[in-house]
Amino acid sequence: MEKKPLILVSNDDGITAPGIHTLVKVMQKIGEVVVVAPDGPQSGMGHAITIGNTLRLDRSLAFAEVESYECSGTPADCVKLAKHHVLKNRKPDLVVSGINHGSNSSISVLYSGTMSAAIEAAIEGLPAIGFSLCDYGHDIDFSHTEEYVELITRQALEFGIPAGVALNVNFPKKSAKPIAGIKVCRQARAKWEEEFDERKDPQGRVYFWLTGNFVNHDKGEDTDEAALAQNYVSVVPCQFDMTSNYAITVLNNDWNLNPEAEPAGSSKTVESGRAEG
Amino acid sequence: MEKKPLILVSNDDGITAPGIHTLVKVMQKIGEVVVVAPDGPQSGMGHAITIGNTLRLDRSLAFAEVESYECSGTPADCVKLAKHHVLKNRKPDLVVSGINHGSNSSISVLYSGTMSAAIEAAIEGLPAIGFSLCDYGHDIDFSHTEEYVELITRQALEFGIPAGVALNVNFPKKSAKPIAGIKVCRQARAKWEEEFDERKDPQGRVYFWLTGNFVNHDKGEDTDEAALAQNYVSVVPCQFDMTSNYAITVLNNDWNLNPEAEPAGSSKTVESGRAEG
Repeated sequence: MEKKPLILVSNDDGITAPGIHTLVKVMQKIGEVVVVAPDGPQSGMGHAITIGNTLRLDRSLAFAEVESYECSGTPADCVKLAKHHVLKNRKPDLVVSGINHGSNSSISVLYSGTMSAAIEAAIEGLPAIGFSLCDYGHDIDFSHTEEYVELITRQALEFGIPAGVALNVNFPKKSAKPIAGIKVCRQARAKWEEEFDERKDPQGRVYFWLTGNFVNHDKGEDTDEAALAQNYVSVVPCQFDMTSNYAITVLNNDWNLNPEAEPAGSSKTVESGRAEG
Repeated sequence: MEKKPLILVSNDDGITAPGIHTLVKVMQKIGEVVVVAPDGPQSGMGHAITIGNTLRLDRSLAFAEVESYECSGTPADCVKLAKHHVLKNRKPDLVVSGINHGSNSSISVLYSGTMSAAIEAAIEGLPAIGFSLCDYGHDIDFSHTEEYVELITRQALEFGIPAGVALNVNFPKKSAKPIAGIKVCRQARAKWEEEFDERKDPQGRVYFWLTGNFVNHDKGEDTDEAALAQNYVSVVPCQFDMTSNYAITVLNNDWNLNPEAEPAGSSKTVESGRAEG
């Protein structure tokens, strides 16, 4: 009998969230599952880690028949503790995170605890996927995502994920319209336009709630936002190397960071009269 | 008289940390300064934002003669509140964060609250720089960084920073050796190799401290780690678009995400016998 792949599951909504239960159900069809997830909600935690405080890790009863642990830390902490403490010499074949309650498309990848678990796994050299559902409703329905979660997971195990990359998968909200398919995309240049809801506490002291609207400024057809708007599942491969090679060239040519070592413009070669903006 | 540039200052070590006081001192030579910083330490918060809880923002007495505010939230919250609530129609010419107590080179950029303030500013369309000093000592000496903080800040104001990019500047620890200069670099492929220090609390229940060693696996001479090892100040331009274009190509060619729409291999064109690994 072929050995079942070992799949580590985490999330950021906490171990009792419906999304991780859908994800575990699908993963049990594919492999041997171990769950290490936060013991409570960790949404918006970005790539936070716990360094000024202690961490707890306890066996969890959240899943029948699945080895599972709940952790007091962030999603990134969960993956670190899973690798170094829970799994030790059992190297997972895949790390999956989610299914997040709410979108992690576009710029939300930076704020996302779901994706930080996946990116932490990629840093550790493990293939990883974060799954999110673009639905902020209370009684959220994950059922339409299951076949696509299974398809993408099986392909990741079969074909691999390039090193240094984690996949950011987002699903359109369930609707009467069927899912159009799966598109590999780039991250849209969209952003949250924040507003702060200013209130006064019972003592008359001011406090704020962060709120705002997601606005897509990107007209590209090849973005995750465009795919989701057309009812596709979006897959964005995300790298943890944040270097902008373009900006390295700009700084080396336009700035003068070592004025004593090399006078401004000394190494410039003029080849044509055309100046690029 | 020329109008002074407006400079927003934040950090992740909190408004009373020595590093932000050095940074404010330098910025006061260059422009009009407004400080919005966390009211306590926020190290390792990555790009966390406060969405499940309220935020406080109060005038601070941490700086004489400088308009300053302390915030209960994360570094990214500080920048959001500064832009939308404190500054409103006063658009800053530059956002600076730090000087962080400890390195944010290489992969640490992802965990760094200092850099998340800078990257949040870049998302908001503002030029931004995060400064960090590679010294974890208790009585840390920031004095050797001042002239370089000033030089880099003045050049950012004069020459600009490419859109979608924030600069990650790291300084070597103060030593007898003079700083060799400034190098524009790429993010090294280095990582933290974690260990967990397992202890028992007074009730006998297990808890963990995250600990570990930073290991540089990258042999490149063009990395921030290589520059810092040679006593250079490293400058890595960091983009918030995390898309891996290379991986998009791999997935589109090697995976088969829409098996019904298009059978595997149907669009493949064989042009030569050579297969790339």
